[in-house]
Amino acid sequence: MDFEEVVRKRRSIRKFRDEIFPEDKVVKALELAILAPNSSNVQTWDFHWVKAPEKKKKLVEACLSQSAARTASHLIVVTADGKAWRRSQKPLVNWVRAVNAPKIVIQYYEKLVPVTYNSGFLNIFAPLKWITFFITGLFRPIMRGPVTNRDISEVAVKSAALACENFVLAITSLGGATCMMEGFDEKRVKSLLNLNCSTRVVMVISVGYEGERGTWGPQFRLPFEQVVHIY
Amino acid sequence: MDFEEVVRKRRSIRKFRDEIFPEDKVVKALELAILAPNSSNVQTWDFHWVKAPEKKKKLVEACLSQSAARTASHLIVVTADGKAWRRSQKPLVNWVRAVNAPKIVIQYYEKLVPVTYNSGFLNIFAPLKWITFFITGLFRPIMRGPVTNRDISEVAVKSAALACENFVLAITSLGGATCMMEGFDEKRVKSLLNLNCSTRVVMVISVGYEGERGTWGPQFRLPFEQVVHIY
Repeated sequence: MDFEEVVRKRRSIRKFRDEIFPEDKVVKALELAILAPNSSNVQTWDFHWVKAPEKKKKLVEACLSQSAARTASHLIVVTADGKAWRRSQKPLVNWVRAVNAPKIVIQYYEKLVPVTYNSGFLNIFAPLKWITFFITGLFRPIMRGPVTNRDISEVAVKSAALACENFVLAITSLGGATCMMEGFDEKRVKSLLNLNCSTRVVMVISVGYEGERGTWGPQFRLPFEQVVHIY
Repeated sequence: MDFEEVVRKRRSIRKFRDEIFPEDKVVKALELAILAPNSSNVQTWDFHWVKAPEKKKKLVEACLSQSAARTASHLIVVTADGKAWRRSQKPLVNWVRAVNAPKIVIQYYEKLVPVTYNSGFLNIFAPLKWITFFITGLFRPIMRGPVTNRDISEVAVKSAALACENFVLAITSLGGATCMMEGFDEKRVKSLLNLNCSTRVVMVISVGYEGERGTWGPQFRLPFEQVVHIY
């Protein structure tokens, strides 16, 4: 399917029909999801595909039993963890060395990533980071963050969102339909999947085939001129 | 171009060639960007396309003069503002009424959106929200947020990221190349564009045609099994 057609076809579907969407196509869409760009390529995202019927039932309840969850063939919980750079740092150092990246990039992955993505227990390093950025910023342009652990976690959430968009477009291109859900009980979802406390649930994505009255009507968007500004 | 081909072709390009990428294709990509799904469809995103040479020069400096910014044909600053539901609420109420959405949805846009997307000056409503979610959550699944204004702003950032991914894929499908940049001086970018304090700079996206050694080498991703978990 042509790219523009995919984007225009994708809608948030709130009711799926009974026919099960094939698992191999979900795998394909996940493969395309993780090709999304992401902050420093540290890949702090995770995709939890809940298949076991008992667990899936509980996940539907945690999604407030909304029809987009209840009627879905598949439910994928997407999470982000600001601390997950730990699993990718070493492979990334090997990778930038293997591809002969500029020296500054190699140093970034070796030395700076552990500092950038860590503000310490109770944000103990945050004031120091903030002051450094503030003072340096008086003299020249400098990145102002991430300062707190919340900032780091937000960077991870943002990257995971990019992968989520790839995923829903991929499912659409494969003939399926999706709904990105933010209406869920994060505490119950985390306890169901045994996630650690630094992990954030970015969204739950339901997958299936569009059912009758899957949307309320045509898509609504603000006029282009209201959100695009030219300088 | 086929969807999978677009996703596999998209890379973060750090050096563009001199040839200017056509403006009408950037407009097309922006049109597809704003078709992305987003939280409650409140569209709290904005796209600032900086064309004026003097302003663009300053923006390149605010992007730490990195080559992905310096060599780009176009620079788009994407922002998110948790308070921007105010401009979409009325049109959304009209829209859900026009399409005969369920009554609960109409009530949501009329009554709940202003409460959900507002935690008051200095988060004055946040403790009340937190306690309500906590106590209700003891008895049944409930959404745990957004509680603070920071939570609201993060929801807006997440939605804007979805649109950013649409945008970079669209540019790729139109033969161009992009780089999502998070390495910028947020304070300088905001002052350059006269943005208000509740606005967050999500990323700056550069657009152009891929130049020589635009990437360091083949793409690196963690193995599928390390980020996809099946339950």
